[in-house]
Amino acid sequence: MANDKKMVEQITSMDVDFAQWYTDVVKKAELVDYSGVKGCMIIRPYGYAIWENIQRELDKRFKALGHENVYMPMFIPESLLQKEKDHVAGFAPECAIVTIGGQNKLAERLVVRPTSETLFCDHFKDIIHSYRDLPKLYNQWVNVVRWEKTTRPFLRTSEFLWQEGHTMHENEEQAREETLRMLGVYEEFYLNCLAIPAVTGQKTEKEKFAGAEETYTIEPMMHNGVALQGGTSHYFGDGFAKAFDITYTDRENKIKYPHQTSWGVSTRMIGAIIMAHGDDNGLILPPAVAPIQVAIIPVAQHKEGVLEKANEIKATLEKAGFRVRLDDSDQSTGWKYSQYEMKGVPVRLEIGPRDIESGNCVLVSRVSREKSFVAIDGVENEVQKMLAFVHDELVARARKNLEEKTHVATTYEQFLDIAENKPGFIKAMWCGDSACEDKLKEATGGVKSRCIPFKEEKLADTCVYCGRPAKHMVVWGKQY
Amino acid sequence: MANDKKMVEQITSMDVDFAQWYTDVVKKAELVDYSGVKGCMIIRPYGYAIWENIQRELDKRFKALGHENVYMPMFIPESLLQKEKDHVAGFAPECAIVTIGGQNKLAERLVVRPTSETLFCDHFKDIIHSYRDLPKLYNQWVNVVRWEKTTRPFLRTSEFLWQEGHTMHENEEQAREETLRMLGVYEEFYLNCLAIPAVTGQKTEKEKFAGAEETYTIEPMMHNGVALQGGTSHYFGDGFAKAFDITYTDRENKIKYPHQTSWGVSTRMIGAIIMAHGDDNGLILPPAVAPIQVAIIPVAQHKEGVLEKANEIKATLEKAGFRVRLDDSDQSTGWKYSQYEMKGVPVRLEIGPRDIESGNCVLVSRVSREKSFVAIDGVENEVQKMLAFVHDELVARARKNLEEKTHVATTYEQFLDIAENKPGFIKAMWCGDSACEDKLKEATGGVKSRCIPFKEEKLADTCVYCGRPAKHMVVWGKQY
Repeated sequence: MANDKKMVEQITSMDVDFAQWYTDVVKKAELVDYSGVKGCMIIRPYGYAIWENIQRELDKRFKALGHENVYMPMFIPESLLQKEKDHVAGFAPECAIVTIGGQNKLAERLVVRPTSETLFCDHFKDIIHSYRDLPKLYNQWVNVVRWEKTTRPFLRTSEFLWQEGHTMHENEEQAREETLRMLGVYEEFYLNCLAIPAVTGQKTEKEKFAGAEETYTIEPMMHNGVALQGGTSHYFGDGFAKAFDITYTDRENKIKYPHQTSWGVSTRMIGAIIMAHGDDNGLILPPAVAPIQVAIIPVAQHKEGVLEKANEIKATLEKAGFRVRLDDSDQSTGWKYSQYEMKGVPVRLEIGPRDIESGNCVLVSRVSREKSFVAIDGVENEVQKMLAFVHDELVARARKNLEEKTHVATTYEQFLDIAENKPGFIKAMWCGDSACEDKLKEATGGVKSRCIPFKEEKLADTCVYCGRPAKHMVVWGKQY
Repeated sequence: MANDKKMVEQITSMDVDFAQWYTDVVKKAELVDYSGVKGCMIIRPYGYAIWENIQRELDKRFKALGHENVYMPMFIPESLLQKEKDHVAGFAPECAIVTIGGQNKLAERLVVRPTSETLFCDHFKDIIHSYRDLPKLYNQWVNVVRWEKTTRPFLRTSEFLWQEGHTMHENEEQAREETLRMLGVYEEFYLNCLAIPAVTGQKTEKEKFAGAEETYTIEPMMHNGVALQGGTSHYFGDGFAKAFDITYTDRENKIKYPHQTSWGVSTRMIGAIIMAHGDDNGLILPPAVAPIQVAIIPVAQHKEGVLEKANEIKATLEKAGFRVRLDDSDQSTGWKYSQYEMKGVPVRLEIGPRDIESGNCVLVSRVSREKSFVAIDGVENEVQKMLAFVHDELVARARKNLEEKTHVATTYEQFLDIAENKPGFIKAMWCGDSACEDKLKEATGGVKSRCIPFKEEKLADTCVYCGRPAKHMVVWGKQY
């Protein structure tokens, strides 16, 4: 057992240094590698397989709601980006710019897309003419670039992968519905596929997307109490439509501007999975997106019949639709146990000579780590139950973490005290003035408004900072 | 029938102007739109759905052979691109270069990937140490950029989508096997999914990939006799491994260089589908990748029971695994017939009141356009048969085209005459000297060697250009 002990020791304990724990896990579980390209990451097979599972699950949901995938160019002529003034102001500082093409200096510089509202609008202008052309429900799965000075794998990199939905509607009501519908899709996906319950709500004016009228957000909490902006959905009104001169003839034959939304989630979600569920033994992956759901470890695999039975079980489980890895390498059993624990595989199945004799095998869940003996006959049902148990347990733990690390502040002193001493979210009243957000951020070294949650409570009558009448309850917190 | 007639007339006849026919089809079938970004295309939902089907089919094949998907950064530091001298010489003229990031001039310029050998090698260096780490069988689905002056949707655009496989092996033999295995996957995919039989073989020294020892290619012929480089697979030897100092400890504990391959196909394949199968009525899509395999057109749909029955049939067909569109819009039946013909849907199913009475419906294949009456009960089997018929018929037509437009030249005069008067491929002997390739290209206004086919014939003893002893039979042709 020397080997596996050594491996586990290579992961820094969460309580000692959470940032180092994160770095250790992403490297040792072989999710990413650092590249020679500043600020960019290599997503390795195990990490990319999580992303493929995320894509499959989300894409299914998007298409079920009538969305279609498209592909827009990744270059945006600078003049196009500048058409909507708030938008360009928000993104200009983060742009990577192509100035040379085919060995010649370009007449117009090209921005590598930080997001694609402008390209979609340029296209919508050409294809939307009548109410019959609406709604347009588009999505694309692409890479985007936002120049970053300090980067961290999955959480903040200059290039990342995401999906961006862009939709156009006949009127405000339909566009608003779409904005909230897609935030709802994210919320359901976070809960049912990533096993992460989260706070959802509306961003304040200060924190909304550049060019949006309103931004809605899903804000999961990480194990250490820090927030991650997990996904956003924007209502644009007709601002971009006006800037890009997109009009259509409505049912009464009048010329109108369509109303617009966009919404996106990214590879950052893999960071959320790591930090919401992981422990000192490594990753814990939610079954719905785990590349390997069951790791079969043969015990005394050189003994007659062991590998044969292990392969039989593998075939049974694969036929039942599970993602299975049988590790028959010459590594020690102990090493394998640690390895698949570190990789966060939800269920381990052990099978040895004595088990075969008794017609049983051993199941161990990544969350409880207790052994249970189950009959090989019908093992697929037991695996199904254990995967469901892992999912539910992860949800319960994450919910407990979210609840325990959410604190109420009704006075400025309380706010400062919590910000200083209790990692997590702070619920507090707010007057609606951005200046108070600035002051609170400054006083606390980075606590920002996460959102005005859909589920508001009335904690007090006055703003926690300025004492003026409160307009909203806000959830505050530090973020990645 | 005025409407549908009008629509069909908007497509230029292939025989009148093939290039214009192509442009008409890609636009009117809504596969692409031109973007405001020079040289880049917008892939619209119908075009992107073909790409998604291609991806799914190929990805399945790659994974069945043990390949894993990864994601590399899209930026390549210029110094990294320059590490392999033939490689940089080949790609430098086509590069798009980022010189500004986050409003600052970059210390090192970043090339937007034209291909990713250099990035993979930089990563392989970090993760390959022992023979136990081999083979590494990686693939990625990404966008790449090669700056182009003249562009045409799918065939030649500055940005395009593709997959690039990159593998590392213990020795030459295994790497060579992989190179040919993956060309074989492409050949099988072209035939069984795209319904395109094609010539396969090895590129001449002059036409091989920058940095490769050998390049193998699949060369389908378009309806007009012009070739399209349909996909390539490269054997690199250990050239890149040496340039990037990638070594591993072999089974005898000796330090060795691994041997490498790469292989790729792109959205250009959609161009091949269009030009190999299309006709004057528009697209004809091979069933395996058609976004809609069956278009159900209700006749007299306002009559009681028609839409109900149409929806029933739709559900039956979808349950059987077919991709189905029921068009119950208020467009005329004739318009719908033309519309789905233009969009290349392999099978049309008509269902009207009289059909329902008799328990039948009408199936029409896109290739024969003949009506056949089949029982609604068991219609899924008839649809299956008709889809298989469409596939086989497309293969047969494409094979006939390939055979009829392949000509033998044993003398220089014959070669010139065929090049001038008979569009298609020319089979002719070659001495092995690049100078003869240059001369033939010059004399014919662009006829180049497509490949030395795996199935060589001995047509003559001497080179068709210089008369020196022939080394190989080469297939020659103009290309897109």
